[in-house]
Amino acid sequence: MHLFFQPDIDIDTDTFFFSEEESKHCIKVLRFSKGNMVNVANGKGLCIEAEIIDANAKKCQLKSLKKQEFNKVRNYYVTLFIAPTKNTDRLEWLIEKATEIGIDECYFIETKRSERSRLNLDRLNKIAISGMKQSKQWWLPKLHQIVGFEDGVNLVQTNAQHFIGWCMAAPNLSLAKQLEPKTKILGIWIGPEGDFTDEEINLAKDKGIKPVWLGNEILRTETAALFVLSAIKTLIHE
Amino acid sequence: MHLFFQPDIDIDTDTFFFSEEESKHCIKVLRFSKGNMVNVANGKGLCIEAEIIDANAKKCQLKSLKKQEFNKVRNYYVTLFIAPTKNTDRLEWLIEKATEIGIDECYFIETKRSERSRLNLDRLNKIAISGMKQSKQWWLPKLHQIVGFEDGVNLVQTNAQHFIGWCMAAPNLSLAKQLEPKTKILGIWIGPEGDFTDEEINLAKDKGIKPVWLGNEILRTETAALFVLSAIKTLIHE
Repeated sequence: MHLFFQPDIDIDTDTFFFSEEESKHCIKVLRFSKGNMVNVANGKGLCIEAEIIDANAKKCQLKSLKKQEFNKVRNYYVTLFIAPTKNTDRLEWLIEKATEIGIDECYFIETKRSERSRLNLDRLNKIAISGMKQSKQWWLPKLHQIVGFEDGVNLVQTNAQHFIGWCMAAPNLSLAKQLEPKTKILGIWIGPEGDFTDEEINLAKDKGIKPVWLGNEILRTETAALFVLSAIKTLIHE
Repeated sequence: MHLFFQPDIDIDTDTFFFSEEESKHCIKVLRFSKGNMVNVANGKGLCIEAEIIDANAKKCQLKSLKKQEFNKVRNYYVTLFIAPTKNTDRLEWLIEKATEIGIDECYFIETKRSERSRLNLDRLNKIAISGMKQSKQWWLPKLHQIVGFEDGVNLVQTNAQHFIGWCMAAPNLSLAKQLEPKTKILGIWIGPEGDFTDEEINLAKDKGIKPVWLGNEILRTETAALFVLSAIKTLIHE
């Protein structure tokens, strides 16, 4: 059954409307009509099996028939803090792949050497929704607008373990050697091309964020993020 | 210093020519001229510091001044066997990212559910070269043309450990639980959208290829490959 996305539905929803965009997609593009059944996710674990009761291409109305709540598929919570790449394709690819592999939140950070200070968050959210559907997950990652590096650092909670990718980190600082599998709340920091500055690394260290070695290969920003998300999944997942 | 690629140079090379393409890139695009110094890699660990002695845009001639040989940056050897994706962009992303993260050889395999039976290997090689340069490695992955699944399976050597991604594998068959870090020769098998068939999985099992669980998320072909390459790097790298 086709899966749609509507963030404002919840477990108590009876009849509801699709957004203008989802209405158009459902009725105009996919040619669904009154009486058809569809699945609708809210990105927070809920999936409603619903019937189209008014096939309006601008304001499609549906009636809930069956509701199912899904837990997250992972037993850890990971937030990515990343300097957005200059190239939009690379950024979009990153969000798609990070969503598939597993990410809960993403903050884009403005660093000294960042090459981008604005983002089309709507577009990135669409890519995350598509990645979520594609990978059969029911939880949508929360994407946040760009924050300054220092503001980002101040978001770090004491019950989490945070790591910062750094070209100067020694090989004995690999993720495998530093990650404590018991602490399930994680943060990952990935810098821009040209890396974080010494000042940024020192600021991070002061907040308990641990420098981490990512191998001898010099990874692009988006590759480094995916590598670390994969590494975490490998090391911590049960 | 700018890095060029010329596969036919070796440790005994004195004077040599760039290919027509590299000549054009060097002289026409980058505007190098006689007397300029450049670095030239052969993709097999060698880097020659060379001087341009004839700035011919079709057949640029160079003279070796200094040679340096580099070991591989990884202590393991991994071959990827993968059903090529239908979408060319996804395939190219895969090769770029796999080269950065670390891969030694790649065989494209024709499976029952494959959606592509031809490849532009020249184009993929260029992407691998660019990924190699970008990530400051000196070894180029060997990319092979499409082989049938069974022919691929027959390439498996007894001294290697091979894993095959399979949606039906149980969670206790994760890579972390199965990989033996001492065996440094590895093979990874990633199927098409729709997965391998039962016959293919059985054929693989008969050859000692172990089914592996890749998490509850359904990963696209190229994401699965990058996840597994990252996982190996995380688990086996010293």
